[in-house]
Amino acid sequence: MLNIPALEKLVHELSRLPGIGPKTAQRLAYYVLKSKDTYPAQLTEALLRVQTEVHTCTECFNYTDRTICKYCDDSHRNSEILCLVEEPSDISRIESSGAFRGRYHVLHGVISPLEGITAKDLKINELMKKIDAGVAGEKTTIKEVIFAFDADLEGDTTALYLTKILQGKGLKISRIAHGIPMGSDIDFIDDRTMGRALDNRVEL
Amino acid sequence: MLNIPALEKLVHELSRLPGIGPKTAQRLAYYVLKSKDTYPAQLTEALLRVQTEVHTCTECFNYTDRTICKYCDDSHRNSEILCLVEEPSDISRIESSGAFRGRYHVLHGVISPLEGITAKDLKINELMKKIDAGVAGEKTTIKEVIFAFDADLEGDTTALYLTKILQGKGLKISRIAHGIPMGSDIDFIDDRTMGRALDNRVEL
Repeated sequence: MLNIPALEKLVHELSRLPGIGPKTAQRLAYYVLKSKDTYPAQLTEALLRVQTEVHTCTECFNYTDRTICKYCDDSHRNSEILCLVEEPSDISRIESSGAFRGRYHVLHGVISPLEGITAKDLKINELMKKIDAGVAGEKTTIKEVIFAFDADLEGDTTALYLTKILQGKGLKISRIAHGIPMGSDIDFIDDRTMGRALDNRVEL
Repeated sequence: MLNIPALEKLVHELSRLPGIGPKTAQRLAYYVLKSKDTYPAQLTEALLRVQTEVHTCTECFNYTDRTICKYCDDSHRNSEILCLVEEPSDISRIESSGAFRGRYHVLHGVISPLEGITAKDLKINELMKKIDAGVAGEKTTIKEVIFAFDADLEGDTTALYLTKILQGKGLKISRIAHGIPMGSDIDFIDDRTMGRALDNRVEL
């Protein structure tokens, strides 16, 4: 429709980004064009830097520009508790709550038969090795594993699978609670969330 | 917060895009990282191509990868009617309506005292030359000018300014109509739109 292959290519590449539809991608591409003298060079440089400098932590598979990430490098953290997350971005969400001071392990995905993602595609082998060996550097034995997965089918499947293969290792296994979000109105809560909130009620 | 300068730089660059806040930029940056082996190279290539191949049409200042754009190159279009738009992106919006078969002229902005954009920053000199000479290539005299600006203060200011400097040139000057959008419910129309719709009522 734009009839300019170079512009169409840029729109196509931008629309591959999550949450960016063709219409938004077109708007972004026009912005790139409008600031052609300064912006594309800056963005290109940023892309290149990320490509060369950022990689996964050898310990927990979070993103880092060093060998091990700042959470694995922090000796004040409790190495007995390991929190499993789907993606590195989940870590910053958990960190900003300030409620967790243990270690992390990033699976880089969840089991999803629909998308053809099996346990082998995730960092599960690495997890088992870590649990068998304790957290490297300190050789502390891991005593508790917390699953912090999304509250969807894939998250449930992954939690179920991991529970199975972690059984018999003498670990305390838990999953972050599902329930009514803080500050929200009970009137507007959906049935499944309300069901979970009742099932998982906490004794006072 | 991310503690990885390269990643923070990418988030910063992405958040400069229109409509992309810091939170969305972070999500996009994580996507870039996740598909590090394929995506950044593709996007970089697209950015480079746009930088080198796309420029403005010498005639109407629309974006093109040739000397003159496809609308200026189309001999079936009516060169007597000239539609003024703010940005090249507005052209595709107008084109997809199928209601206009004249020529375009892109101002590349609107007069905005707040942002320090004056008439000199826009393609108004080029417009005056074009009107005085007719559309090049065919030397047809322009008989009608249509303003297709946004319905905001800057659009109004620009329309007012252009009306003033175009007066006395024997042109028919008009602006696209403001009123109730097609298919919409009168109940939900704001006061200003309703006022305009009544002021500009069309005799049947």
